[in-house]
Amino acid sequence: MDKKGYLKEFTFIEGMDPKNRNYLMDALIIKRLPKGFVMVGDQGNCKGIPLVTKGNLRLFKISENGREMTVYRVAEGELCVLAAVCVLGGLEYQYSVEAEKDCVIADIPPEAFIYLLEKDNSFKTYVFRTLADKLISSLNTMEMITFKSIEERIIDYLDTHADNQGKIVTTHEKIAIELGSSREVISRQLKKMADEGLLTQKRGSIILNKKPQ
Amino acid sequence: MDKKGYLKEFTFIEGMDPKNRNYLMDALIIKRLPKGFVMVGDQGNCKGIPLVTKGNLRLFKISENGREMTVYRVAEGELCVLAAVCVLGGLEYQYSVEAEKDCVIADIPPEAFIYLLEKDNSFKTYVFRTLADKLISSLNTMEMITFKSIEERIIDYLDTHADNQGKIVTTHEKIAIELGSSREVISRQLKKMADEGLLTQKRGSIILNKKPQ
Repeated sequence: MDKKGYLKEFTFIEGMDPKNRNYLMDALIIKRLPKGFVMVGDQGNCKGIPLVTKGNLRLFKISENGREMTVYRVAEGELCVLAAVCVLGGLEYQYSVEAEKDCVIADIPPEAFIYLLEKDNSFKTYVFRTLADKLISSLNTMEMITFKSIEERIIDYLDTHADNQGKIVTTHEKIAIELGSSREVISRQLKKMADEGLLTQKRGSIILNKKPQ
Repeated sequence: MDKKGYLKEFTFIEGMDPKNRNYLMDALIIKRLPKGFVMVGDQGNCKGIPLVTKGNLRLFKISENGREMTVYRVAEGELCVLAAVCVLGGLEYQYSVEAEKDCVIADIPPEAFIYLLEKDNSFKTYVFRTLADKLISSLNTMEMITFKSIEERIIDYLDTHADNQGKIVTTHEKIAIELGSSREVISRQLKKMADEGLLTQKRGSIILNKKPQ
């Protein structure tokens, strides 16, 4: 497939000045990351700003005591704006990246990114909007963590991930990472909820009892 | 004072194209907000993007069950970037604003903001940087809430706010709002920490015992 074929979900490209669009197309570097591929990000390591054309990336952090937290995901058709912030410099934020599925990435080299951010209004608007979007969604996550009890957040998580039969294929560890909690806390809450008859725990899955069987 | 006098902390103004700078100066509306003034923000209510030239603003949210959370502060010399996001539209985020001190605000009318964001590189870079900055700081807050125990966070809060004698003038309610917790949780933790000899609770203040008296 030519580069343009990969990028049809990125509608901002249509709106770009033709000269800038050609410049972007020439500059992009197409990469494939297999599912499970992990990169440890740091300031000096930001070699490009990825447009995810297939698959999805998960950004995460590991705490001093080894706990893991999902920072956010970059879905198909999205730009990883933290890489953009990292390239623009002056701001320190360390994180790691995992390919959750087989991914095809179109990397924008830093110098091309900086050039287009100055010269092209459609590009600039897109980046600005993505940045604003991530700010709002991180404030919403903060609010959820602050205002909701761990039990409410587990119920939200299970509701979102359940299939038609109310089955969720997951582990206590995975729920802990998604909710920014510890495995011990999640296991204790799930046991309590199972005792109350809200759910049934199986090996590798959970069945929500309130859903129609 | 003329408008320029108020704005000397906003160094991006120096870097603006002189024509754009004059346009900004003409468009700015200077407002005074007394300490304690509260605005309830919503989409339709964003009449301008404030540059805080004196004092500081606190953005906060109230949950359905009446709990309050500080989203972030806009300090002297800063732009309220959530107002900018709100004006650019398409993103819903409801919050309230409180003047924590007597404030002088230079409001940028929405149409001037949009015009300058397109036309002026120094202005654009400043807004972009502020947005990136707030994204990073909200991710850091999220991480702190996720990775640190409430006891560690209370200790951080007390250490930051203590005077030379280890005294912090505050209330349990206020600590709860700052840490996104409930008054009950904070009171229970403070009692535990007092029982362990880490601090002494007084009416309206807390004394950290480990600080030199």
